[in-house]
Amino acid sequence: MAARQEGEWAHPYVPKDLKLPGYVPCFLSQKDIVVPYLATSLLLVSFIWIFSGRSKLTKTDRLLMCWWAFTGLTHIILEGYFAFSPEFYKEKTPHYLAEVWKEYSKGDSRYVGRDAGIVSVEGITAVLEGPASLIAVYAIATRKPYSYILQFAVCIGQLYGCLVYFITAFLEGDNFAMSPFYYWVYYIGANGWWVVIPLLIANRSWKKITAAIQAEKKIKTG
Amino acid sequence: MAARQEGEWAHPYVPKDLKLPGYVPCFLSQKDIVVPYLATSLLLVSFIWIFSGRSKLTKTDRLLMCWWAFTGLTHIILEGYFAFSPEFYKEKTPHYLAEVWKEYSKGDSRYVGRDAGIVSVEGITAVLEGPASLIAVYAIATRKPYSYILQFAVCIGQLYGCLVYFITAFLEGDNFAMSPFYYWVYYIGANGWWVVIPLLIANRSWKKITAAIQAEKKIKTG
Repeated sequence: MAARQEGEWAHPYVPKDLKLPGYVPCFLSQKDIVVPYLATSLLLVSFIWIFSGRSKLTKTDRLLMCWWAFTGLTHIILEGYFAFSPEFYKEKTPHYLAEVWKEYSKGDSRYVGRDAGIVSVEGITAVLEGPASLIAVYAIATRKPYSYILQFAVCIGQLYGCLVYFITAFLEGDNFAMSPFYYWVYYIGANGWWVVIPLLIANRSWKKITAAIQAEKKIKTG
Repeated sequence: MAARQEGEWAHPYVPKDLKLPGYVPCFLSQKDIVVPYLATSLLLVSFIWIFSGRSKLTKTDRLLMCWWAFTGLTHIILEGYFAFSPEFYKEKTPHYLAEVWKEYSKGDSRYVGRDAGIVSVEGITAVLEGPASLIAVYAIATRKPYSYILQFAVCIGQLYGCLVYFITAFLEGDNFAMSPFYYWVYYIGANGWWVVIPLLIANRSWKKITAAIQAEKKIKTG
């Protein structure tokens, strides 16, 4: 743990002059934070994969249900906690969700610094995109006609959020990570999935929708 | 015009402690800024309305073409200028686009203060949503099958941008307007259109798309 300075813990984040009165260091190791998240996610995804195997859904639809459940719960639980817990970095006990964000802030100190852009994007993600992702699981399972457009809407939201996230960091000097390791693994690596996967799903939804519009047009014209 | 202080013009924006070295006051009056914008827009919209009257397009589609042309050119010209002109408030000659943003900043000083969240949202709006809006005009005119999903995508982007815009201001204390007049007319009034109209168009696109998916399903099932 870091040394105490004038009754306060010195924080490890970059930039060094970031003021965090009342900061309390991480209690858990990186492994103790990351492994439970990945293990719980894997359990959730396996459960949905096996359970949906009994249905007549295609493998793509089953995979999509796994993704939407995983991303929906991540949005609601992890990002929801962050958006509405401005004092998470002062937690004096090992609260798992507070630890997640103390750890993640090593890759982007704007989280611990409560940057307004970050809090806005995370709030929108947690409140709107989280529940919408879970509705997408239901919509795919029950083959609702709004399934593609709902998935498309959430993907556009996720992509817009990532754009704001990366562009604001660039404009503010891109100096929020403790080291290249945290920059590439947390800031780029963890967020990269929410660029690549929404791009793929948005592209698929776009094609499915335009194909349906074309089919509908053919009926009308002939 | 404001008084010169220590070789610099004092700016009229709120908060007063905002530092704007090199600031040069507005040359044009509010009327000289707003009237040309509204008159040009009205001319553009009238031109599209009359020109599209020769086609077999519905009145709704013609109205939508007017909106997409208006919003697309606003995004590209006005917001594009802002996003890529960090020194607009230092313009020493009456450059119309610089004047627009000096005037608008009376309702939201984060523009003249180059807030990273504002510049990000305006950059995304100008570079992605502007051209996409003009493609929507073309897509409606030529009845492309991607017309609804493209319009829907731009609407979600516009709504996300407005959410970030309003939430960041709220989180930062909502104290960026010179007076209640500028707050309600510029900050709320001018932006309100980009909340209400995208909501209406997104809702319409959603319904059209789900109807097409349902129709396609009926053919497949029997």
